[in-house]
Amino acid sequence: MREIKVAAAQLGAIQKAESREAVVGRMLALMAQAKAAGCNLIVYPELALTTFFPRWYHENRAEADVWFESAMPNEATQPLFDAAREYGMAMSFGYAELTPDGHHFNTSILVDDKGNIVGKYRKIHLPGHAEYDHDRSHQHLEKRYFEPGDLGFNVWRTMGGIFGMAICNDRRWPETYREMGLQGVEMILLGFNTPSVNGQKGAEAHAQRMFHHKLSVQAGAYQNSTWVIAVAKAGSEDGHHLMGGTVIVNPDGEIVAESRTEDDELVIAACDLDATVFGKETVFDFARHRRIEHYGRINTQTGVILPPEA
Amino acid sequence: MREIKVAAAQLGAIQKAESREAVVGRMLALMAQAKAAGCNLIVYPELALTTFFPRWYHENRAEADVWFESAMPNEATQPLFDAAREYGMAMSFGYAELTPDGHHFNTSILVDDKGNIVGKYRKIHLPGHAEYDHDRSHQHLEKRYFEPGDLGFNVWRTMGGIFGMAICNDRRWPETYREMGLQGVEMILLGFNTPSVNGQKGAEAHAQRMFHHKLSVQAGAYQNSTWVIAVAKAGSEDGHHLMGGTVIVNPDGEIVAESRTEDDELVIAACDLDATVFGKETVFDFARHRRIEHYGRINTQTGVILPPEA
Repeated sequence: MREIKVAAAQLGAIQKAESREAVVGRMLALMAQAKAAGCNLIVYPELALTTFFPRWYHENRAEADVWFESAMPNEATQPLFDAAREYGMAMSFGYAELTPDGHHFNTSILVDDKGNIVGKYRKIHLPGHAEYDHDRSHQHLEKRYFEPGDLGFNVWRTMGGIFGMAICNDRRWPETYREMGLQGVEMILLGFNTPSVNGQKGAEAHAQRMFHHKLSVQAGAYQNSTWVIAVAKAGSEDGHHLMGGTVIVNPDGEIVAESRTEDDELVIAACDLDATVFGKETVFDFARHRRIEHYGRINTQTGVILPPEA
Repeated sequence: MREIKVAAAQLGAIQKAESREAVVGRMLALMAQAKAAGCNLIVYPELALTTFFPRWYHENRAEADVWFESAMPNEATQPLFDAAREYGMAMSFGYAELTPDGHHFNTSILVDDKGNIVGKYRKIHLPGHAEYDHDRSHQHLEKRYFEPGDLGFNVWRTMGGIFGMAICNDRRWPETYREMGLQGVEMILLGFNTPSVNGQKGAEAHAQRMFHHKLSVQAGAYQNSTWVIAVAKAGSEDGHHLMGGTVIVNPDGEIVAESRTEDDELVIAACDLDATVFGKETVFDFARHRRIEHYGRINTQTGVILPPEA
């Protein structure tokens, strides 16, 4: 048994006017609770430090730089690193990253129990659009403010296991999990901010969006025999509602713990990394069962190519 | 609206001693019911003509050729083709194929409403093992009796839509759906024979195996915005129980109809192929959102390559 006690640290709404310092204070309170509960790892959502700003349109993109971090840790987030090191707790959280040479990414990091950043992931599957869209009930401008991640899907050895990261919309794409599965991933840390309303399909119920979220995460976990820790930012941010749905999913694809609120809330489970072994050695023993000679379209063809008309 | 009224024709158990003629008689009875219900397409399971013979070990593999068809149609199955043509109904079913040059495949065909075979698929993801395994509660010798399919994942235009096929274990592999999704598939026909008991994990409940089945099919449908018609052979074959779970899944990943028995049973739904359009044009608009530069492992690496030890 290789047990990691995980705290999925859901964050409630963060208003536009809320400071990083205030948010970090909430995150620290959750971390103290996680410590009291004996957790080894705490996982916060995507863009944990600010409101979900891609809903706000700036004609001048540079104005959005206010939402980005140009160093990590920085003054606002140093207390998180200090507390994690003091507690001997590993952590992961997402933030908007502005690089020294001016690139913008939707990023998450993995910090080990010594407070060292050991992994960085930059979101690859950016949803939404780049220009103002009058046909939507609300904007979702991730393609405006971020570039697609340039680091690929990596995994890292830490805490005696193999860890990967993904962010929000990545969870709907089976390629995300498979790239990490092919590296033996045992636990994927995945933060998200998902509006309760489909901006292009008002009739789509909140419940259906929750179903799609869980379906994607559970299938990714099962089909790669890995734990997935999916952590929401939830609640109403300046009138825009984000669904919750923080879940800890085991390597059989089953939800073993989930959030009950749309507020700051810890969802805790003791996760045995050895529970990944059976699936990886049987039904999903890739070496015996995958047939890559028939997967050629997947990484050579981006969009659909229809068959010829009869 | 492009509506196809689909009959998912679940078959109950077929005993080892049962003749093809007896089974075809059952299939014809289901087809007549489907016609009476106004269906345009009837879909039968994997290896529809015989018992699920890969549970039986033959030291001499050639003895298993008795389960294979060396021509299609043949004398036993011609009545199915005749009835389908008379009814103006398309159909699909699975069978064990022995080619003129001695190759063995787990095959399914798509027959149009004129009785012409317009598509053939040979199962790519063969589960199980090739040699007798004393550690299993029952044998699952697909890797002994079949070669992996050599035709790839294709789609066919017929009935005003784009159709694909897959078989049983293929449904657990997201590559299956994605290869067809990249060709614009609108409906996937998928037959299966799934033992209720995991031969390597007796403690795995029937309910958990049903969960994995549905999870995989529903995720594949949602993530490619396609209908999936998943049709079981069910019930107890010579004391070996196959789970049911025939489902018709819409392009949102929702089950719209499912079987209630483990016997011969029609599961019927009117399926609008235009229901695939919204997903294909928004969340799963592959051309806008897929990032193939980060999918390189998927078709260049069969098995797991672990990260270096720290």
